[in-house]
Amino acid sequence: MSRETDDLAEAVDLDEDLEDLALEDDYALNPEFVSDVADALERGDAERLRELLAALHPADVADLMGFLSAGDREELIPHLDPETLAEILSELDTEIREEVLEHVPSATLAKAIGEMESDDAADVVDDLEADKRAEVMAAIPEVERAAIETTLAYEDETAGRLMQREVVAAPQFWTVGQAIDHFRKESEDLPELFFDVYVVDPAYKPVGAVPVSQLLRVPRATPLAQIMEPVNEITADLDQEEVAYIFDKYHLISAPVVDAAGRLVGQITVDDIVSVVQEEGEEDILALAGVSDAGRDADVVGIVRSRIPWLMINTVTAALAASVIGAFQAEIEKLVILAVLYPIVASLGGNAGTQTLAVAVRALASREISTFNARRTVIRELVVGLINGLALALVTGIVLFALQQDVRLSAVFGLAMVINVTFAALAGAVVPLVLERIGRDPAVSSSIFVTFVTDFTGFFAFLGLAALILL
Amino acid sequence: MSRETDDLAEAVDLDEDLEDLALEDDYALNPEFVSDVADALERGDAERLRELLAALHPADVADLMGFLSAGDREELIPHLDPETLAEILSELDTEIREEVLEHVPSATLAKAIGEMESDDAADVVDDLEADKRAEVMAAIPEVERAAIETTLAYEDETAGRLMQREVVAAPQFWTVGQAIDHFRKESEDLPELFFDVYVVDPAYKPVGAVPVSQLLRVPRATPLAQIMEPVNEITADLDQEEVAYIFDKYHLISAPVVDAAGRLVGQITVDDIVSVVQEEGEEDILALAGVSDAGRDADVVGIVRSRIPWLMINTVTAALAASVIGAFQAEIEKLVILAVLYPIVASLGGNAGTQTLAVAVRALASREISTFNARRTVIRELVVGLINGLALALVTGIVLFALQQDVRLSAVFGLAMVINVTFAALAGAVVPLVLERIGRDPAVSSSIFVTFVTDFTGFFAFLGLAALILL
Repeated sequence: MSRETDDLAEAVDLDEDLEDLALEDDYALNPEFVSDVADALERGDAERLRELLAALHPADVADLMGFLSAGDREELIPHLDPETLAEILSELDTEIREEVLEHVPSATLAKAIGEMESDDAADVVDDLEADKRAEVMAAIPEVERAAIETTLAYEDETAGRLMQREVVAAPQFWTVGQAIDHFRKESEDLPELFFDVYVVDPAYKPVGAVPVSQLLRVPRATPLAQIMEPVNEITADLDQEEVAYIFDKYHLISAPVVDAAGRLVGQITVDDIVSVVQEEGEEDILALAGVSDAGRDADVVGIVRSRIPWLMINTVTAALAASVIGAFQAEIEKLVILAVLYPIVASLGGNAGTQTLAVAVRALASREISTFNARRTVIRELVVGLINGLALALVTGIVLFALQQDVRLSAVFGLAMVINVTFAALAGAVVPLVLERIGRDPAVSSSIFVTFVTDFTGFFAFLGLAALILL
Repeated sequence: MSRETDDLAEAVDLDEDLEDLALEDDYALNPEFVSDVADALERGDAERLRELLAALHPADVADLMGFLSAGDREELIPHLDPETLAEILSELDTEIREEVLEHVPSATLAKAIGEMESDDAADVVDDLEADKRAEVMAAIPEVERAAIETTLAYEDETAGRLMQREVVAAPQFWTVGQAIDHFRKESEDLPELFFDVYVVDPAYKPVGAVPVSQLLRVPRATPLAQIMEPVNEITADLDQEEVAYIFDKYHLISAPVVDAAGRLVGQITVDDIVSVVQEEGEEDILALAGVSDAGRDADVVGIVRSRIPWLMINTVTAALAASVIGAFQAEIEKLVILAVLYPIVASLGGNAGTQTLAVAVRALASREISTFNARRTVIRELVVGLINGLALALVTGIVLFALQQDVRLSAVFGLAMVINVTFAALAGAVVPLVLERIGRDPAVSSSIFVTFVTDFTGFFAFLGLAALILL
């Protein structure tokens, strides 16, 4: 008996040691731990694998999958039971998830999906290839299947897709005590975690919300209607970016989602919003850089496909801008120093434009720019561009004069710089505003326009002025 | 009596109408409502102003302030009582807040700050000018002042600054029923909202957490120790970016903050994390575009200051890259078409480099790249760069041949394109990785290096090959 207890104690110690070993201080996976897993996979040591995986939070198992080679990953999959799969599937990066989904047998997958919350389950089903999807859906119990189908009927990136259908609702006439007693009795039907109890009218329309912590601080006899707060209802077809805006603005922890008739159909919780905000920020960065979509584990073909369209468009705009230079070949032959200088004018314009563009796109995304201050913003950017252009013109003009001793060349260079940097600032502010106004995403196509404007203006202003003044 | 009730009903109706009028469907302020406020300010109609402001959520009052002119804003300030101020101060953008803080009398400000949560209060005090700060602090009650001073002792952008000191803790040996009874009795001392009860040992070190909804579903006799979950402790000096990473990874709603000795000193809730994630994403976009820091309401001088350093550095790197062209002036004089083509080579390299850079910076920020896959990432980017370069070289080479009928010129152009796009991809991946490795923020200085590399390589590869092969 004592011997057994000792063994148990040792086993528990071991597990705690493993947990300590698994993560570094900054919650990153320990490289040693990852190679332990790879070794166990190589030896086919199922027992050791089980131990190692048990020491990890599902989010860390998902990270681990990302750090293993594709071969090791495939070998690991048979060692994951449906419960573990259910927990890690929604944590995996898109590309790895697609790979994993291919290799998990349909029956196991159906079991795992049955254990997930409706929003996560729908995401996984959505990722499946048509054949497998039919197979898996057929194996999921009726009720869960219907819930998944309802969720999938909403468009991608809307509140309907983001919400979980599991909510806690209570009628208006209940007291705090009645609510708590009900929750205790029906605890099996409650979502795993919830933060607000939605108070609904007889038509199941939300009329208020009571934060759970509120239920704990007031006397049991208090009617819910008396302590409920107004709710920020979210309609199921609202874009997730708008949803994130509302959560951020009003510091919400959860919000009820309603259908077109205003009836409660689900809720969105703030932990999903953190991911949305993360995603939307990433999308903006990538879109500004001309990357359509790419993940860590996209294969080379996928990455090339995500980047080449923009490069091809850029070839056209770069050629168009260069055609300006083509029109001034005679001037360049006469004064070849021009050929050294126009790339500098274009480069600084490009950078000034990119600065303004980034600020404008960010401000539009956080709704800091709106109809109230669009004009004010453009005028301010114009003034900033002019000041920056003058400052740059002064500095570079002086340096150029020191090198070339040609006051007219310096003047032309400086003047072109002022013109281009000012134009760049104007384009960087106006282009995203116009795109937003006509209903396009300002992050996606702004850079093309702005780069083209700054190249074109840079070449034209400098070479045109040179032709007029110097030659 | 009936008459009075009618009047009351009308007044309530009016307020509800105002609320409906205030916001558009997408939760943006209605322009008409904003001009109503401006009109009331002009007329000095305090009564109407009170009505209008009462119809708004504090976050919307903050938005309103942003949309008013500086003059109107100043006039609005005397109409805000300390309670309203307490609610809106933490919602205001930095620049507007500084302006508002200047105009609010110290006594009113001290009252408002006394009403705020410790993290928000500390932020406001931190924004005050030294003189006013001393005045305001002297007027804040002892206890609140001490809390603010403790918070301010933590560095900016750390967990200590982000946390609120108000937490709900319970000893290990309590049952669910004991906890609830205690909360009901001491409800005045509880934070307004809380999501987890932290279970602490006698040394006040957190040993677990019980989500509030858990307290409602289990029998009253259940010991807290039995239902508590492991906690993700956060040390007070942890960087807020790391804190956000932990919240996102483990889907946390709140987390306990501990001091160096491991004692519970506060908590961070997820609504603050949404703002951090938003901020960090914005910082990355701006840093990649070479903007140090700027807000909607920075004045022109502030904006110029946030942008000119990068433009000045860029002048130097652009001049360095252009000096390559200077070395080939003789060749350009002989064959002036070269001058038309090298900007195209440089431009495409720049864009390819920016694409890789954005992907790498994003992946580093979300920790998708780590020591495990850094080498793999660089090699993959190199292959992608080579493929993109070959594709672009093929297309542009053919077009150039169609225009100029010079097969050697097309070959030189294509070859330079392959070299530059490949180099760009390499630089775009390696530069941020190296910066991260040496402990610098990869978003901040990467673009300078990458732009320089792609300009330099583009000019050098094309003109060098042209000198070797064509002349």
